[in-house]
Amino acid sequence: MNEHLLWQIAIMLAAAKIGGEVCERWLKQPAVLGEIVCGVIVGQSACHWVQAENLSLGLLAEIGAVLLLFEVGLESDIEELFRVGSAALWVACMGVILPFVMGWMVANALHYPPIQCLFVGAALTATSVGITARVFSDLRALHTREARVVLGAAVADDVIGLIILAAMSGLAVTRVVSWLAIGKLTALAVLFLVGAIVIGLRATPILLHWAKKMRTRAGISSVAVIFCLVLATLAETVQLAPIVGAFAAGLILAKTEHKVHFEHKIKSIADIFVPIFFVMMGARMNMQMFNPMTAPGRATLALGGLLFIVAIIGKVVGGLTVPMRIAKRWTIGVGMIPRGEVGLIFASIGLSAKVIDSAMYAAIILVVILTTFITPPLLRSIAARSGADEETVPGTASENALHTTEEPHIEALPNTTVSS
Amino acid sequence: MNEHLLWQIAIMLAAAKIGGEVCERWLKQPAVLGEIVCGVIVGQSACHWVQAENLSLGLLAEIGAVLLLFEVGLESDIEELFRVGSAALWVACMGVILPFVMGWMVANALHYPPIQCLFVGAALTATSVGITARVFSDLRALHTREARVVLGAAVADDVIGLIILAAMSGLAVTRVVSWLAIGKLTALAVLFLVGAIVIGLRATPILLHWAKKMRTRAGISSVAVIFCLVLATLAETVQLAPIVGAFAAGLILAKTEHKVHFEHKIKSIADIFVPIFFVMMGARMNMQMFNPMTAPGRATLALGGLLFIVAIIGKVVGGLTVPMRIAKRWTIGVGMIPRGEVGLIFASIGLSAKVIDSAMYAAIILVVILTTFITPPLLRSIAARSGADEETVPGTASENALHTTEEPHIEALPNTTVSS
Repeated sequence: MNEHLLWQIAIMLAAAKIGGEVCERWLKQPAVLGEIVCGVIVGQSACHWVQAENLSLGLLAEIGAVLLLFEVGLESDIEELFRVGSAALWVACMGVILPFVMGWMVANALHYPPIQCLFVGAALTATSVGITARVFSDLRALHTREARVVLGAAVADDVIGLIILAAMSGLAVTRVVSWLAIGKLTALAVLFLVGAIVIGLRATPILLHWAKKMRTRAGISSVAVIFCLVLATLAETVQLAPIVGAFAAGLILAKTEHKVHFEHKIKSIADIFVPIFFVMMGARMNMQMFNPMTAPGRATLALGGLLFIVAIIGKVVGGLTVPMRIAKRWTIGVGMIPRGEVGLIFASIGLSAKVIDSAMYAAIILVVILTTFITPPLLRSIAARSGADEETVPGTASENALHTTEEPHIEALPNTTVSS
Repeated sequence: MNEHLLWQIAIMLAAAKIGGEVCERWLKQPAVLGEIVCGVIVGQSACHWVQAENLSLGLLAEIGAVLLLFEVGLESDIEELFRVGSAALWVACMGVILPFVMGWMVANALHYPPIQCLFVGAALTATSVGITARVFSDLRALHTREARVVLGAAVADDVIGLIILAAMSGLAVTRVVSWLAIGKLTALAVLFLVGAIVIGLRATPILLHWAKKMRTRAGISSVAVIFCLVLATLAETVQLAPIVGAFAAGLILAKTEHKVHFEHKIKSIADIFVPIFFVMMGARMNMQMFNPMTAPGRATLALGGLLFIVAIIGKVVGGLTVPMRIAKRWTIGVGMIPRGEVGLIFASIGLSAKVIDSAMYAAIILVVILTTFITPPLLRSIAARSGADEETVPGTASENALHTTEEPHIEALPNTTVSS
């Protein structure tokens, strides 16, 4: 029965490569945009070649997301991340409060019931860091200050999102907010992040020292993958996103001297699985919901368009108020725009609890789709003007930097290997 | 719902590394034996930490099997394989005829009905090349003449097995053998193998030349993986095992000059997924069926033990009659012993068609398990004495050769890159 699955994986990989190549070579856009668009084409909106609902393919996509954030963590510096901590926290808080308030206002102005207004606001607060991390990675700008602010803000946003989600879930079921449950989840999440980093930084050098002495093939890269999966699972146990755990695992392992022994192997695996994640993201989008030829389609487009504007302004303003050079502020603001799967979770909880109606559900999904599509080109054009990429992506020569990605990101290494 | 799956993957990888390390370091056995044994421990026979029936984990295991044979194909030389063609064909035919006749005789002597005797014989003819290929790979002996005979015989055996399976399936349903269906399947299988190799050898240099010029990350390794998956799917379409297609893909890509650009990346991915396949193989074994404290368990053990002896003799004799040095003959014979999942397919078809009873079914599974467990240590001890490994695994220094596996198998490269 797995016959068609190998075929579907082949289709997803081929779609990713064709879409990515067309985007980078001819459209001068990040590859990830082409992967998502080709995902839409092969997915449930058009060709139906890939079963977007298949659990096994879903697992492969999830492995892709986990490996992406693991890789991003490996290229980040935990101390640098703490150094931008206050700016990241500011961006995260602004990026939660503003979309929440503005989303609530839009729904309220359209005379939706109060609880539905709250849900819409909550759904707009989420940040999905996958897209942004991938664009920064494509532009080789992961080590810049603004990239670190966005990554830090995304982790903070996941914790805040968890709190809001707990509040909303309680609200959806009992119509009452359980402060005890919220406090418990918040404490667990903070405990996980602090515990993972404190224990991990002490334990992993010993663990990898053992792994290096193993006689079986690929001991050290296997142990790195196991560590990543364990932290992803632990994160999910405390109800954070697994990618937050994978990111923490990457941050921790980036500080070990053994990083050079496994980083290129992790990259080789990620090179195959990360595109599967983005194609799957496209394949899962149902574009039939926004058919302008139908009345519900037009209503969804109108409501979704309004929420989309609010969703963008809410996140960008947070970035613009950070004390940095103006171009970098724009990069941060735009980097926070994608809602991704986190917004979808809010919407589906609301729908299944019958708190929001199907029109509002479709409108939120439209916001998620539009923010996903708009971020890569927007971020690229802003980053190209920003001082961020002066060293690595100088003006029009950016294509040269992009197609040399066969080698490890050596410019990120000095930060991380010397200081360990 | 995928939360537990990431955790189960972590458990499978950890089990593989611990089992493999214990086997190689202290027991001086191939790592694969430890992976299977630890699979039994974490699987449905003991701890139940890994859901052996989970389809998503099954897909990961299947990807592992496909990547293993792809990797083995990449390290093999297609011309060398044709050069041992007649010997491989002889081994394959002997390894089908002898176990079939002997299995039939055992069942007949025990007064089983005629159709059940035929099914038992058929189930014993299968060869599962995964174990043997992995042991040869662990011993770095994939480029030896005897390894090529076994690989060639395994491919031939898969075609013969396909024919027998078609005959048996017809027999199970209609009690009549459909010669038309058998002829059609045989023609398709031969057409696939010849077509894939002839077209593939011409098309892949052009394909990879394009892929090399791609600007997106990892173009060439992605195209290699896509090619492997496409051939695996095509193989399954003509009802061959997908791993036969993956092996053919590896053979074809081994002849291209671009092999050096992607082989180490494929190895990095295989390093993670191949152990998952072997752990899963162990996890799926249900040892409770052979509990000697119960009467059905004892009956299964007795019948299975008898068939096990026949299964070994049947395959080894084929190897022993090849015109080669005696130690190499033993290597070939022992290399053909594992039945793996192919025998299980026969048994489950027979059981679901009610052609064989559950005692016979359990006995066949016992044969599969025992041949799986016995091959790695047997093959290692024979290969250590054979001239096969004189260059690469000299006597007791074999451990040194084994733990340097971080690098590509350079000794296999000159054969393949120079001649392309």
